[in-house]
Amino acid sequence: MANVLTRLAKTIERRKGEDEKKSYAAKLFARGPSKCAEKFGEEAVEAIIAAAKNDKKNLTEEAADVLFHMLIMLSSRDVKWKDVLAELERREGTSGIVEKQSRGKN
Amino acid sequence: MANVLTRLAKTIERRKGEDEKKSYAAKLFARGPSKCAEKFGEEAVEAIIAAAKNDKKNLTEEAADVLFHMLIMLSSRDVKWKDVLAELERREGTSGIVEKQSRGKN
Amino acid sequence: MANVLTRLAKTIERRKGEDEKKSYAAKLFARGPSKCAEKFGEEAVEAIIAAAKNDKKNLTEEAADVLFHMLIMLSSRDVKWKDVLAELERREGTSGIVEKQSRGKN
Amino acid sequence: MANVLTRLAKTIERRKGEDEKKSYAAKLFARGPSKCAEKFGEEAVEAIIAAAKNDKKNLTEEAADVLFHMLIMLSSRDVKWKDVLAELERREGTSGIVEKQSRGKN
Repeated sequence: MANVLTRLAKTIERRKGEDEKKSYAAKLFARGPSKCAEKFGEEAVEAIIAAAKNDKKNLTEEAADVLFHMLIMLSSRDVKWKDVLAELERREGTSGIVEKQSRGKN
Repeated sequence: MANVLTRLAKTIERRKGEDEKKSYAAKLFARGPSKCAEKFGEEAVEAIIAAAKNDKKNLTEEAADVLFHMLIMLSSRDVKWKDVLAELERREGTSGIVEKQSRGKN
Repeated sequence: MANVLTRLAKTIERRKGEDEKKSYAAKLFARGPSKCAEKFGEEAVEAIIAAAKNDKKNLTEEAADVLFHMLIMLSSRDVKWKDVLAELERREGTSGIVEKQSRGKN
Repeated sequence: MANVLTRLAKTIERRKGEDEKKSYAAKLFARGPSKCAEKFGEEAVEAIIAAAKNDKKNLTEEAADVLFHMLIMLSSRDVKWKDVLAELERREGTSGIVEKQSRGKN
């Protein structure tokens, strides 16, 4: 089931340059990377509100929206989904505390 | 490789109730669901800025951070990762335009 | 000129309960406080993107949007604009570093 | 009381180039405009969560934080506070619905 994200990343990649009337992803791509980032941000805000209100059903749906729009945002900047997964794999076995310190994040 | 997210979701689930000094996830869980949502929001903002600036390396890292903190936010509200993936699977085959309309989203 | 915010806060307050077809604020109030918070979040994201891109004209417009939607969000929760200004006045003369520490913010 | 924002904008403007050990604003300026935008985003997220949870006291404080960090973000990009207020004044007398349409916002 985890592979739904990989399939979705491929589908979204194919939407680039397609007729924007036919697909939501193509429509977003046509509006440019900043608009894609903006839509990702809107979905993140909706997920945060669902989490703050403890609305589990809505949080599940909004998390799916966040993932979908994150894939579009990444694709709009030619960042590969597999590179994001590789980054997560690289961190496996390292505690979050140590990993964040190593990147100078507070 | 897609399974890194499934492994990570399981690891995070195990962190609940663990000694908060030992793990970053346990520390966040101890501060409560609103703090988990807040951290997710911070990472989403950082990803948005990386995308706006077209900083591909940073966007890759921040997308990984977003995923990690989304898993923590979901877990803090007892929302299962597999239910989020199931929601994405449910939408497969439906165009984004139609799917959003069916949920009354603008 | 600073009083434009005070005038705007009063105008928005009057929009509560008005016909939602006549005013944008009334339309947002009718959709509830979570929707008001969501719209504030969308405008914040747009301001962040304008700042990241160093688009001064757009940043000016988006900052105005953030203020307008913050006033709506506050009003939707019956938080008074003058109480927010009073909070800022209370902090005057205290350094940001000391003030944040006193509230336990990191 | 509305003038607290004007005073604060002036104080923040003076912090530019000051010793970053002495002031929180100077510390943020030293980290660059993207970091200033990031901090604004964090405070916006906290305000959204306070609004979603209907925590009035926290919402008042977070709204003050949003304003403070918006002034820093604007200053980091040399956008004048008075130009943001002028933009709000320009919109006075125009309904939000009409004004948004005129800028092509949805």
